[in-house]
Amino acid sequence: MRKYAKFFGGVALLSALPSLALAQDAPTLESLAANDAFVFNTLLFLIGGFLVMWMAAGFAMLEAGFVRTKNVSMQCLKNISLYSVAGLMFWVVGYQLMYGGGDYFGKFAIMSFTPEDAATGYSSYSDWFFQMVFCATTASIVSGTVAERIKFWPFIIFTLLLTGFIYPIVGSWEWGGGFLDAKFGFSDFAGSTLVHSTGGWAALIGAIILGARKGKYVDGKVNPIPGSNMTLATLGVFILWLGWFGFNGASQLAMGTISDADAIAKVFVNTNMAAAAGVIVAVIYCQVRYGKIDLTLALNGALAGLVAITAEPLAPAVWQSLIIGGIGSLLACLTVPLLDKLKIDDVVGAIPVHLVAGIFGTMIVPWTGDATYFGQFVGVISVGIFVSLVSAIIWTVLKLSIGLRVSEEDEHVGLDQAEIGVPSYPEFVAN
Amino acid sequence: MRKYAKFFGGVALLSALPSLALAQDAPTLESLAANDAFVFNTLLFLIGGFLVMWMAAGFAMLEAGFVRTKNVSMQCLKNISLYSVAGLMFWVVGYQLMYGGGDYFGKFAIMSFTPEDAATGYSSYSDWFFQMVFCATTASIVSGTVAERIKFWPFIIFTLLLTGFIYPIVGSWEWGGGFLDAKFGFSDFAGSTLVHSTGGWAALIGAIILGARKGKYVDGKVNPIPGSNMTLATLGVFILWLGWFGFNGASQLAMGTISDADAIAKVFVNTNMAAAAGVIVAVIYCQVRYGKIDLTLALNGALAGLVAITAEPLAPAVWQSLIIGGIGSLLACLTVPLLDKLKIDDVVGAIPVHLVAGIFGTMIVPWTGDATYFGQFVGVISVGIFVSLVSAIIWTVLKLSIGLRVSEEDEHVGLDQAEIGVPSYPEFVAN
Amino acid sequence: MRKYAKFFGGVALLSALPSLALAQDAPTLESLAANDAFVFNTLLFLIGGFLVMWMAAGFAMLEAGFVRTKNVSMQCLKNISLYSVAGLMFWVVGYQLMYGGGDYFGKFAIMSFTPEDAATGYSSYSDWFFQMVFCATTASIVSGTVAERIKFWPFIIFTLLLTGFIYPIVGSWEWGGGFLDAKFGFSDFAGSTLVHSTGGWAALIGAIILGARKGKYVDGKVNPIPGSNMTLATLGVFILWLGWFGFNGASQLAMGTISDADAIAKVFVNTNMAAAAGVIVAVIYCQVRYGKIDLTLALNGALAGLVAITAEPLAPAVWQSLIIGGIGSLLACLTVPLLDKLKIDDVVGAIPVHLVAGIFGTMIVPWTGDATYFGQFVGVISVGIFVSLVSAIIWTVLKLSIGLRVSEEDEHVGLDQAEIGVPSYPEFVAN
Repeated sequence: MRKYAKFFGGVALLSALPSLALAQDAPTLESLAANDAFVFNTLLFLIGGFLVMWMAAGFAMLEAGFVRTKNVSMQCLKNISLYSVAGLMFWVVGYQLMYGGGDYFGKFAIMSFTPEDAATGYSSYSDWFFQMVFCATTASIVSGTVAERIKFWPFIIFTLLLTGFIYPIVGSWEWGGGFLDAKFGFSDFAGSTLVHSTGGWAALIGAIILGARKGKYVDGKVNPIPGSNMTLATLGVFILWLGWFGFNGASQLAMGTISDADAIAKVFVNTNMAAAAGVIVAVIYCQVRYGKIDLTLALNGALAGLVAITAEPLAPAVWQSLIIGGIGSLLACLTVPLLDKLKIDDVVGAIPVHLVAGIFGTMIVPWTGDATYFGQFVGVISVGIFVSLVSAIIWTVLKLSIGLRVSEEDEHVGLDQAEIGVPSYPEFVAN
Repeated sequence: MRKYAKFFGGVALLSALPSLALAQDAPTLESLAANDAFVFNTLLFLIGGFLVMWMAAGFAMLEAGFVRTKNVSMQCLKNISLYSVAGLMFWVVGYQLMYGGGDYFGKFAIMSFTPEDAATGYSSYSDWFFQMVFCATTASIVSGTVAERIKFWPFIIFTLLLTGFIYPIVGSWEWGGGFLDAKFGFSDFAGSTLVHSTGGWAALIGAIILGARKGKYVDGKVNPIPGSNMTLATLGVFILWLGWFGFNGASQLAMGTISDADAIAKVFVNTNMAAAAGVIVAVIYCQVRYGKIDLTLALNGALAGLVAITAEPLAPAVWQSLIIGGIGSLLACLTVPLLDKLKIDDVVGAIPVHLVAGIFGTMIVPWTGDATYFGQFVGVISVGIFVSLVSAIIWTVLKLSIGLRVSEEDEHVGLDQAEIGVPSYPEFVAN
Repeated sequence: MRKYAKFFGGVALLSALPSLALAQDAPTLESLAANDAFVFNTLLFLIGGFLVMWMAAGFAMLEAGFVRTKNVSMQCLKNISLYSVAGLMFWVVGYQLMYGGGDYFGKFAIMSFTPEDAATGYSSYSDWFFQMVFCATTASIVSGTVAERIKFWPFIIFTLLLTGFIYPIVGSWEWGGGFLDAKFGFSDFAGSTLVHSTGGWAALIGAIILGARKGKYVDGKVNPIPGSNMTLATLGVFILWLGWFGFNGASQLAMGTISDADAIAKVFVNTNMAAAAGVIVAVIYCQVRYGKIDLTLALNGALAGLVAITAEPLAPAVWQSLIIGGIGSLLACLTVPLLDKLKIDDVVGAIPVHLVAGIFGTMIVPWTGDATYFGQFVGVISVGIFVSLVSAIIWTVLKLSIGLRVSEEDEHVGLDQAEIGVPSYPEFVAN
């Protein structure tokens, strides 16, 4: 009888001790400690990783809720596609580029996983998985801004280059031990700049080069184009909020010790409070400024709070996290009309949320954390210039070659009919 | 080359042993055991915490699905706002009030986190986070019942007081070591009474003082007002079911030992089975009683089963959990028409689910657990009287001062148009 | 003052060491290692279990999105009911049948949980919970295919028999240590055949015996019947993708050692990459074949990639996982029109995804894993014949007795009106 037959080699478990560190050796205090630390660290990456992977669904729902019905299926397709492409590219070249120590040509290579080993402290698969979902997040940020008018394939090509090269190179400067880390003491705990601003700059340049949606800015007037589904947008924000515990919490990168576990817990609390402050500030701002409470601003306020705290979610006290999140949210609220003045059409508000709050979050790190304003400024500017420049080149080449934007007619009937052939809500009569 | 540069001080990991208990001392068997227990316990709070945080999304979806289209954006706004406010208030005053040992005035203070320490056994940040999401759940329960007619700001003020004072004071009686715990042996594992009934009583009194929605009870007839979106409601229930594994499972509060881990696993099984029984009983009840199966009762049956098992999810055998969940569901099904007879308009059925099943779950604890019927009765009654009385005062003061209820015209056009300005599904033609 | 009063017996934690292995004995290196392994393994089952439980919501959303509005509430009801029934039946008889060592009559019994014990290596409650959600997944697969025309109660009766008997018996052949495991070296890591093909065969036979929906195949023409809600379907796929990390990852069944933790991490990576390849292949296939990109195929491509890798997500290198997932997706894409030719009406595409990709995934195991093509073939065929035969008998008996299919009129007005009485989106004007 093999009751627990699904336990491959289950017999091993029945022995009093797990085999430690790949060895059949009798365990020692040292090997047991190393074993447990390895499991804890790997588990942290896996839990953090699946929570951040789940953020891909959050972006999908947020964006599907913020676009019009005629473009909803397309937005769903773009989101599931970009997550898939990001995984592929971060394996083909991204990870090695990012963590290759600046040796970009030597490390232009497919990911090579390290065999498990007590000495490394965690599984290299878990590390790759966790870093990959960050790469995918960067691409998710872009898709919302350029929605409702960009063609599918140029968007996918941009995503390929963003996730395979732009993000990994920017990441290499800091998390890969490059010049921002080594020379400027730049500090970006979980990626206010490296992830969120990178996505934000790419989105901003994309929005400028693409131009606004037809009908958004007519005769000097701004015509708001309401999103089709506020419950999906709300669900998306809750998903993102949940996923952010993995995004920030697991960026502690180790969970084997009391002090690491406590740090992760503190990051959870600060992350939550920055988001809460973001909501509260946006709600009060709306009430005072407009007399009504714009749900979309409340939702984006939560996200802006989350982005702002991401550069340093560990050092601040709770009251500081509230202030950081609250200011991030306020800045996002103030940026929305500004973009409209500049006729930059950002469908979901990703630029206020990810770029503006991301810059603020990065610049405020020295208030609580171990960094200088100068170092942070260099990081923000370097990333801004590099990502903007490269994005501008890519978007422009795409525009001049295969074309970025759908035809006016296709934009009018919607991308679902033009490129997908599957309407999102076929049975409902739209206005 | 710093391949793993993101590992701040990653070198530490490469040493054979994690640093234990903040010290550089060579590890001992004792310190390793304490280290691992600390990490396990903290991890339990964090996983449990993010699962219960996710329940906030579940309530949002459930309620957005059960209200009419014209009030959906408002329901989303209320849910994300109440979660944010709960986090703020439980930090400002709630936690210290709840766990201050009854010294309410001495502990009327902002949360003060304890430095991590092997001796405490878990991170105080993780503990706060886990307790905070319970506080937020209490507020989530109220928002559904009073939907579609309450103004935004009075609701938020009530939430402030509920999460900052009412819930923490009730909690202090039991989980804070107060009189219910010390004198009556009251037993409430994860909060059938402390969380669910507290929310339920506050909701009941709110519904009575607010009055029913226009058109619900006319000329002695009950006009059912169907919810706008059954898929969202279903999604909400699945989210809540998932989150409840954290709600009940992590209420074991420790995961460092074989016996704690086994207890958590048993709680998972019992929690799941009570919910399953809730669904099955509601489905059969509907078929027998009405000849059709009301999806909303099946959904609320799952929730009622979950609420009922929450007071004691560890002691019962599986068959007992099935009975507890099944009876909880049946009682909820029977309460729905009763409320209509009393003209108490509970939009989402929170009173049958959280109050009635919560009372039942608490009173049935002595069947399987370590408690007396008298002690449980004292707990139920004490909480009922206190929460009802204080809620009545707050709701009434709000009603007489800034007003609780929107104007008839605003109720007619819907709160989204009246207070939000963002319709939930702007492109769809509503009946 | 009892600040942490919620810590039942919290004092224990304050002692330097967790009590190990139920004993008050002073801990030893051996007992600490056994304690930690027990906690890790149990935690793996619980995390994996709640992720797979969450897949029930994924199936519910996917199916609710793929059916027409008039059948959406019913699809929600079926999904929450089948999950509940599966839990009940796997407790009443399923688990013991599956892991009873082939002694079907002797083990025809209610689940009996083993007391926790260091020697078992994990909590028997956590094991049951994890195995139960697999059983529920099998039933979820069926409900999508037979949607929009099957009556509620016959579906539930089939689910009872599938989850109580068919799935456990098939599972006993392999995971229960039966003939496929013992005699043929059949290898199915997480259930491409045991779960997905089992559900797929049952669905296929159900679809044949039920017949197609009215209007699907008329005069030799195939009339596509678009699903009502693509965002829900997309959400469902993201949920399933997330849940699959638990499905495959936790099927490693142990997490106490470096090598197990590393294996789980590798499974995460391979699972993700197979799904990504599934999306990419489906998108390219659609573009090339149809000139437009069918979102439903992209979504099903992800799922087919996931199903294909499920039989062996550990052995393949990443590039092999990409190929396995990609081919699984392509096969699913090619099967969709084939089923239409055969006039087999599969509402959600579960047969291409779960049956076809499941067979492929099982047959490709010898390429990378430790199995023979002959052994895999025997497994596929044995399961196919048994499940098809028994399903055919059950579906036929149900058809001849209480009837399987709703009346033509009920099918026309929709199951929501006919059997539920709760429309899914009552305020929207459907076409």
